[in-house]
Amino acid sequence: MTEKRRIVSGMRPTGPLHLGNLLGALANWVNMQDDYDCFYFIADWHALTSDYEDTRLIAAYTRQMMIDWLSVGLLPEKSTLFIQSHIKEHAELFLILSMITPVPWLERNPTYKDQMVQIKDKDLSTFGFLGYPVLQAADIIMYKAFGVPVGVDQVPHVEITREIARRFNSFYGEIFPEPQAILTQTPKILGTDRRKMSKSYNNAIFLSDSPKAIRSTVSQMITDPQRARRSDPGNPDICNVFEFHKIYTDQQKVDTINRECRTAQIGCVECKKIMADYLAAALAPVREKRTYYETRPALVDEVISNGCDRARKVAQKTLDEVRTSIRISYQGTIGA
Amino acid sequence: MTEKRRIVSGMRPTGPLHLGNLLGALANWVNMQDDYDCFYFIADWHALTSDYEDTRLIAAYTRQMMIDWLSVGLLPEKSTLFIQSHIKEHAELFLILSMITPVPWLERNPTYKDQMVQIKDKDLSTFGFLGYPVLQAADIIMYKAFGVPVGVDQVPHVEITREIARRFNSFYGEIFPEPQAILTQTPKILGTDRRKMSKSYNNAIFLSDSPKAIRSTVSQMITDPQRARRSDPGNPDICNVFEFHKIYTDQQKVDTINRECRTAQIGCVECKKIMADYLAAALAPVREKRTYYETRPALVDEVISNGCDRARKVAQKTLDEVRTSIRISYQGTIGA
Repeated sequence: MTEKRRIVSGMRPTGPLHLGNLLGALANWVNMQDDYDCFYFIADWHALTSDYEDTRLIAAYTRQMMIDWLSVGLLPEKSTLFIQSHIKEHAELFLILSMITPVPWLERNPTYKDQMVQIKDKDLSTFGFLGYPVLQAADIIMYKAFGVPVGVDQVPHVEITREIARRFNSFYGEIFPEPQAILTQTPKILGTDRRKMSKSYNNAIFLSDSPKAIRSTVSQMITDPQRARRSDPGNPDICNVFEFHKIYTDQQKVDTINRECRTAQIGCVECKKIMADYLAAALAPVREKRTYYETRPALVDEVISNGCDRARKVAQKTLDEVRTSIRISYQGTIGA
Repeated sequence: MTEKRRIVSGMRPTGPLHLGNLLGALANWVNMQDDYDCFYFIADWHALTSDYEDTRLIAAYTRQMMIDWLSVGLLPEKSTLFIQSHIKEHAELFLILSMITPVPWLERNPTYKDQMVQIKDKDLSTFGFLGYPVLQAADIIMYKAFGVPVGVDQVPHVEITREIARRFNSFYGEIFPEPQAILTQTPKILGTDRRKMSKSYNNAIFLSDSPKAIRSTVSQMITDPQRARRSDPGNPDICNVFEFHKIYTDQQKVDTINRECRTAQIGCVECKKIMADYLAAALAPVREKRTYYETRPALVDEVISNGCDRARKVAQKTLDEVRTSIRISYQGTIGA
């Protein structure tokens, strides 16, 4: 039996998860569980980078995120599911990597530049936000990850992680492998208003939504914007609802809708109702599992605690190596 | 009995300590032991900010520094003597304070600007060097210090610490007192070449120097630069050697030298010999104590271990409060 290669990925607990999170990342995480040794963490310290002025919901979101994860099929017996802030070694490695990371690497980070321009309602000119990629690098190389599953937009982050790992190794010896970006294909679904699905845009379908809530949200979805009247023929190729059909509706039905939309035999209202039913059915097992875990708080505690213990064991081993290699003293080996 | 107010101060382990360190800080630290609850730490993580490219000596310097401290009269039964990197809570608090510290506060730090200009042989454009005051703030407020003994040039650092503490309190509740800068008067001694005494200038008298080494170093000291010949009268007011006399030589002798120098009755060679003898005598007990501790490594280990345990207890309590106040989850109180 060959050992599985390790991947690491994390999510910030900034709210309940929606279909965009599921299809854009989580579904892929679930699939990777068979082929990789997966370390998935809730990045609650990272949540502070943007939400430091109001942290009231971070703990609740963290817990809800773990329940979301379990509900969609992340399995504690297969994957190491943990919470970043429970593994103090992340803070120590962050501090150490800080010392070797050039500020210009951080300033030229495209996400940094983008967000500084785009996000106006929060003050992001903090030292912690500038150092986001340093903490991220610590998160990843802590577990000596072979790879990091990411979308195209996150590739520069993995690149900074690789550069930081390389620089550490060049100073202190070969401790860290340089993680690969594992690019993942994701379906292009949008929010109800055709913008990127996001909690803050109020255009999202949440994993925890009831069938009724799903139907209500789906009914508001913008379809083919060119189809103004029921009698106009539609174009599924540019319809966001049709993208959902392709994922959730059975193939025969998809073919029928594809044909009938183009000839105006089916209207958007009916089409959306069908999609909502399929979607609600697809999410039924997720809802069931959610109820299961929500009514068993001790079980969730145990999952978190076990996952953190597993992660911590690896992290402690890494930090032992790091401390030895950078040669500052540490308790246990005090001395000259 | 009223409780003593707490002070916190640290030193970077960048080499053996010299008279400049003793007179500029350590002697004052020793004196403060009676009036304050003193927390003194060796800032080995801070040493990485400038020495990250070559860390081979940090552990040895750390141990030697503890021996230097004990030799000059810091008392483990009075003061809490510890090593920064052994208290992992410093890294966690650094991470948390990072999130709330505006980058402009750091960029306008005068020491930062100075050192970026002055230090040419090391690349200081790192994230860690920029964040030096954030780690320093963590070091200080961790112990809820009432004050920080500093020289005038370090007052801006304490000011940043106060600002960071204030900002933390404004977001998360009153956890941290704002530490006062406790300005300390120090004698103005210089190195042998009349520049600031510094290991890197090769102009220092070290606490560990033998009487012979002291005499040799003192013999090279520049005196009154205007006194070119033995027969010229000298001016003790501008003579670095005379500054040493004022500290180490007995008052009657100082008066004599003061008089005889101005009338050229005594020459610089003889004057320096006298000073070297007084200095060597003054440092004899330091040397003795140094020998005592150098031959008892287990005792030094115990001092370090006990000091760290004491500091850690306080640090853990602070971090418990911090975690509760910023409301991110933590093991022990997992949950919503």
